[in-house]
Amino acid sequence: MDAVRIGLIGAGRIGKIHGETIARRVEAARLAAVADIYRPAAEELAARLNAPRAAADYRHLLDDKEIDAIVIASASDTHAQIIEEAASAGKDIFCEKPIDYDLARIDRALAAVRQAGVKLQVGFNRRFDANFRKVREMVAAGKIGRPHILRITSRDPAPPPIEYVKVSGGLFLDMTIHDFDMARFLVGSEVRELYATGAVMIDPAIGEAGDIDTAIITLTFDNGVIGAIDNSRRAVYGYDQRVELFGSEGMVAVSNNLPDTHTYANGDGVHASLPLYFFLERYLDSYIAELSAFVEAITADREPPVTGEDGRVPVLLGLAAQLSLREKRPVALAELSA
Amino acid sequence: MDAVRIGLIGAGRIGKIHGETIARRVEAARLAAVADIYRPAAEELAARLNAPRAAADYRHLLDDKEIDAIVIASASDTHAQIIEEAASAGKDIFCEKPIDYDLARIDRALAAVRQAGVKLQVGFNRRFDANFRKVREMVAAGKIGRPHILRITSRDPAPPPIEYVKVSGGLFLDMTIHDFDMARFLVGSEVRELYATGAVMIDPAIGEAGDIDTAIITLTFDNGVIGAIDNSRRAVYGYDQRVELFGSEGMVAVSNNLPDTHTYANGDGVHASLPLYFFLERYLDSYIAELSAFVEAITADREPPVTGEDGRVPVLLGLAAQLSLREKRPVALAELSA
Amino acid sequence: MDAVRIGLIGAGRIGKIHGETIARRVEAARLAAVADIYRPAAEELAARLNAPRAAADYRHLLDDKEIDAIVIASASDTHAQIIEEAASAGKDIFCEKPIDYDLARIDRALAAVRQAGVKLQVGFNRRFDANFRKVREMVAAGKIGRPHILRITSRDPAPPPIEYVKVSGGLFLDMTIHDFDMARFLVGSEVRELYATGAVMIDPAIGEAGDIDTAIITLTFDNGVIGAIDNSRRAVYGYDQRVELFGSEGMVAVSNNLPDTHTYANGDGVHASLPLYFFLERYLDSYIAELSAFVEAITADREPPVTGEDGRVPVLLGLAAQLSLREKRPVALAELSA
Amino acid sequence: MDAVRIGLIGAGRIGKIHGETIARRVEAARLAAVADIYRPAAEELAARLNAPRAAADYRHLLDDKEIDAIVIASASDTHAQIIEEAASAGKDIFCEKPIDYDLARIDRALAAVRQAGVKLQVGFNRRFDANFRKVREMVAAGKIGRPHILRITSRDPAPPPIEYVKVSGGLFLDMTIHDFDMARFLVGSEVRELYATGAVMIDPAIGEAGDIDTAIITLTFDNGVIGAIDNSRRAVYGYDQRVELFGSEGMVAVSNNLPDTHTYANGDGVHASLPLYFFLERYLDSYIAELSAFVEAITADREPPVTGEDGRVPVLLGLAAQLSLREKRPVALAELSA
Repeated sequence: MDAVRIGLIGAGRIGKIHGETIARRVEAARLAAVADIYRPAAEELAARLNAPRAAADYRHLLDDKEIDAIVIASASDTHAQIIEEAASAGKDIFCEKPIDYDLARIDRALAAVRQAGVKLQVGFNRRFDANFRKVREMVAAGKIGRPHILRITSRDPAPPPIEYVKVSGGLFLDMTIHDFDMARFLVGSEVRELYATGAVMIDPAIGEAGDIDTAIITLTFDNGVIGAIDNSRRAVYGYDQRVELFGSEGMVAVSNNLPDTHTYANGDGVHASLPLYFFLERYLDSYIAELSAFVEAITADREPPVTGEDGRVPVLLGLAAQLSLREKRPVALAELSA
Repeated sequence: MDAVRIGLIGAGRIGKIHGETIARRVEAARLAAVADIYRPAAEELAARLNAPRAAADYRHLLDDKEIDAIVIASASDTHAQIIEEAASAGKDIFCEKPIDYDLARIDRALAAVRQAGVKLQVGFNRRFDANFRKVREMVAAGKIGRPHILRITSRDPAPPPIEYVKVSGGLFLDMTIHDFDMARFLVGSEVRELYATGAVMIDPAIGEAGDIDTAIITLTFDNGVIGAIDNSRRAVYGYDQRVELFGSEGMVAVSNNLPDTHTYANGDGVHASLPLYFFLERYLDSYIAELSAFVEAITADREPPVTGEDGRVPVLLGLAAQLSLREKRPVALAELSA
Repeated sequence: MDAVRIGLIGAGRIGKIHGETIARRVEAARLAAVADIYRPAAEELAARLNAPRAAADYRHLLDDKEIDAIVIASASDTHAQIIEEAASAGKDIFCEKPIDYDLARIDRALAAVRQAGVKLQVGFNRRFDANFRKVREMVAAGKIGRPHILRITSRDPAPPPIEYVKVSGGLFLDMTIHDFDMARFLVGSEVRELYATGAVMIDPAIGEAGDIDTAIITLTFDNGVIGAIDNSRRAVYGYDQRVELFGSEGMVAVSNNLPDTHTYANGDGVHASLPLYFFLERYLDSYIAELSAFVEAITADREPPVTGEDGRVPVLLGLAAQLSLREKRPVALAELSA
Repeated sequence: MDAVRIGLIGAGRIGKIHGETIARRVEAARLAAVADIYRPAAEELAARLNAPRAAADYRHLLDDKEIDAIVIASASDTHAQIIEEAASAGKDIFCEKPIDYDLARIDRALAAVRQAGVKLQVGFNRRFDANFRKVREMVAAGKIGRPHILRITSRDPAPPPIEYVKVSGGLFLDMTIHDFDMARFLVGSEVRELYATGAVMIDPAIGEAGDIDTAIITLTFDNGVIGAIDNSRRAVYGYDQRVELFGSEGMVAVSNNLPDTHTYANGDGVHASLPLYFFLERYLDSYIAELSAFVEAITADREPPVTGEDGRVPVLLGLAAQLSLREKRPVALAELSA
């Protein structure tokens, strides 16, 4: 088959990563065009990556017969709309998370995708991280027997700017959403009920913006597994991304990736490197792997590995966590999906 | 000062450990007598450790003017009664956990101790474990700044016999009680509210006995810290005792003690030893350290490092966890202590 | 400055890696042409990487005015000859190790480079590995004080084919040569004397080919440091590449890179992943980094980070090790360079 | 059988440890008497450990019919003489290393032991360390296949006082002797040849005393294994005792024991504890285990696990290393034993 011709929408930080991946790392893909509402950004990225076209309006890409698929890396509140339009245009779609924060809006977008019969993959890149994939593989292979307890530690090195916090959807939808996805992915079952506790410990401004910066969410899954996620917006030692799954026959855990393996011993102790600083460093390979998988799904004409439903459920979990925190009680997911 | 003359009540498994510690490891102590309702056990232990006296009735020890202090290692349901009598007899008291499972009963025992003006130390030995002590020291020294998140993993290698489960007081009072104590000790603040979730995953017989074998308990402390304890009655890889405390300036964690440091690499992977099998192996040094501390508290005439209140609160937390699990809601500690 | 236009000579395994790096990973470079004595290989690689020209005869590249620099990845016995010709043609040169196994031949090539005033970098890629670079940085920063003891463990996952062994120059020149380079790089001083011991332990056919497969080489440096390198042609657990430098104020060590950070605990023990399999996996990033550094040296017009002398000395050390092994005695480097 | 009645000769640092072990840790032994040329030391230790007798002259212990076995912990230069006399007196003997530094003197002592038919165990306590024992067990069980390469790192936290250095026998006989024993123990074969290199790097006063403080010794064993030991008299990070054995089917390595398992992460890195400070801390359990084994050998009437020959060979290796260093050449052990 010929290379998949991809139009990239959004030339910001994550758009640049996806663009570079498409142009240089995925043999079976070609970067056909870049769109960004700030046109110079689109042009600059297109030029650097030898993409033949650039546009301010993403609709030019949707109308382009020479484009097979769309990668959506624009602002979050444009995702659902672009998904619908791209589906109508018959393009396969890769969309950064979240699809939207409104369930009805998500459902409309997913309906459009279904109706058009195009493929949709949502950008939960961590599923493609070598560590988490290894955990999933071992669990799926029965290495830990029947899973009992899940533990996820997910801490950022620094909180985002307060202006971002205000429009982020809140900790649960902006940050924990990745952990909710990871929880479903690793356990292989749906969350039935959760209980969220949280507080403002890092920056009062976050509280004034109506959000929290520290949380623990307890999960109960349909298959009986219980789990706890802990989140912090600021770990002074850097990006802390660990997972542990314990079961009847064993336990598997993964810890942080380090920039090097050195240990240094002096009179004060034994010292090692801090984790890779943040998601761009830690998850770089997973950004490449998720787009490779997307392109493979197109060329092999099979279901993408992270579906629209996979994009929807973590939002549902985030909303449930918000409700639990607000009402100080466990929340059954059935309450929200009813 | 002369050596502290100690009478040991209970010559079972833990009694033997305490007896050996007193007789051989604590310079400032002497094992003056051993009592056990099964007299041959008392006599055998006394003979082996060169203790001059043995008795079936512990009251002989309380009446003995040559005995300064009592170590209570008898059945749990005798603890409160013996504490009261020993206090009346003017003996300093070291009592294995729990004092009792009934708060009113505990309060009567503590009142007796206060009234008699004797010392009481409760056997939360894990506080004397080198790992956990290190965490506490670092937290107290401000190394992690203001604490934010506590994580405790506490898993046994195998469930106790079902007959024991039936009289154990249940997972929260039998097993989690140690983790509740550890949580208070490490965080240095009281639990204000908790939420418990749990299930029977290991053995249906445990469920038939009215208990659970797997649990996660979320804690909120007076000082704002949030934490999660996870428990399992059976980790196939052995006794899993880990703690992590995360704060504004850093994180400190401790993991399991191993019998050796070997790593073995072959074509299948890199392999290391399992943790020390169970509490007798893992916490042996802490049993010695707690009795040393008790004897020191007597000789220096100061407050023992684990007080009667320290014995009472974990029971309160266990009862709160039972209530939370039963009613599927967060429980404020104030509800129970009111 | 414009991009550096590079001609690649050799389209085999390492040539492909360098070609891909130049074409896709080094912004400031362009892959201008590929030569290979087997012309279809040159054409295929050029086509895949969008290089405008392909040739069977490397001299076409040397004659090409549109080419600024040459990367030599052809058979080892062609290196010195091509260096001389490329120098005469005024091209900057990156040459895979070794320059040659004959010191006189090396010296002629280096003289040609000096006379032409072109740049020459030798492909000791491990210097660009994040781990080893970290060790060098810490040593250079004085973190370990004055270095005392160097330890290098360098073991391959499997011996090369016996046909390769026969023409490899032997263990010391084929394999240890990298460790000799690392030793000089890390210690920052020249080897004054060495003592080599070795044996055939893995495959008698290696011995029949006149080589050994297992060795320990003890080094004494001009600055007083003593060190030991141990080599094996077959570690069943994979590529084992570790280094330790011990000094008056501390010690720094690096170990193997793993494909993931998982640990798995079951009833048999705690298990982790094997190291990345071999040099292509372990040192991939360093191949990219060394070519980036070469291109930077050209664009900034400065000395390349691995010089012709750096290419010469490890060969000298390899020859000294052969002599030491043969004569069963320590050999001073002065004996050979005299 | 009745408890073995042991007379302890030498009430210094190591004598105190052995005394305490006999009196309190080995059920089947009894401390019958303590002798020390400084009589108050003998009396004080005897009093503290409830040993019935104390003496200045060790011959009183040899004459005592109530004593079954002798533990020699006196000054090194008295060992051989006391062994001979104790053998004549029919006592079983545990002797601290070294028997002597003079081979002829050792041989006379061993002959006396043989003639008397008594048991002799030499105090190479590290064989009883859990780590090294594990390595030996795995090697003996064939886990690494045929051994190829041995690596021993053995570094002290601080050099001894210069007065001690002068009478110590030198680095090889005082410090490396333990590593020589470990090498034989782990590999299970005799050293055929060695090559020693070393220098004064830590303290010129050590050089003025005719000794070195840093060394690497390369070993070739009868079974073909090659190995390297590296020694330093001062590791600023503490007592560094590591071993690695590599073979055709795998590798096993052990590292240092730590006082706790904590890791602390802050903005500077991840930090862990230093190793246990020195041999008393690191090898405490092994001192207990070696005396238990000695007593067991007596009660079960079997060969002690560390024989007179095991005491002799490391001295031979130390002398060979001295010769190698002096003459700057590899030395075959056959040269010395001829």
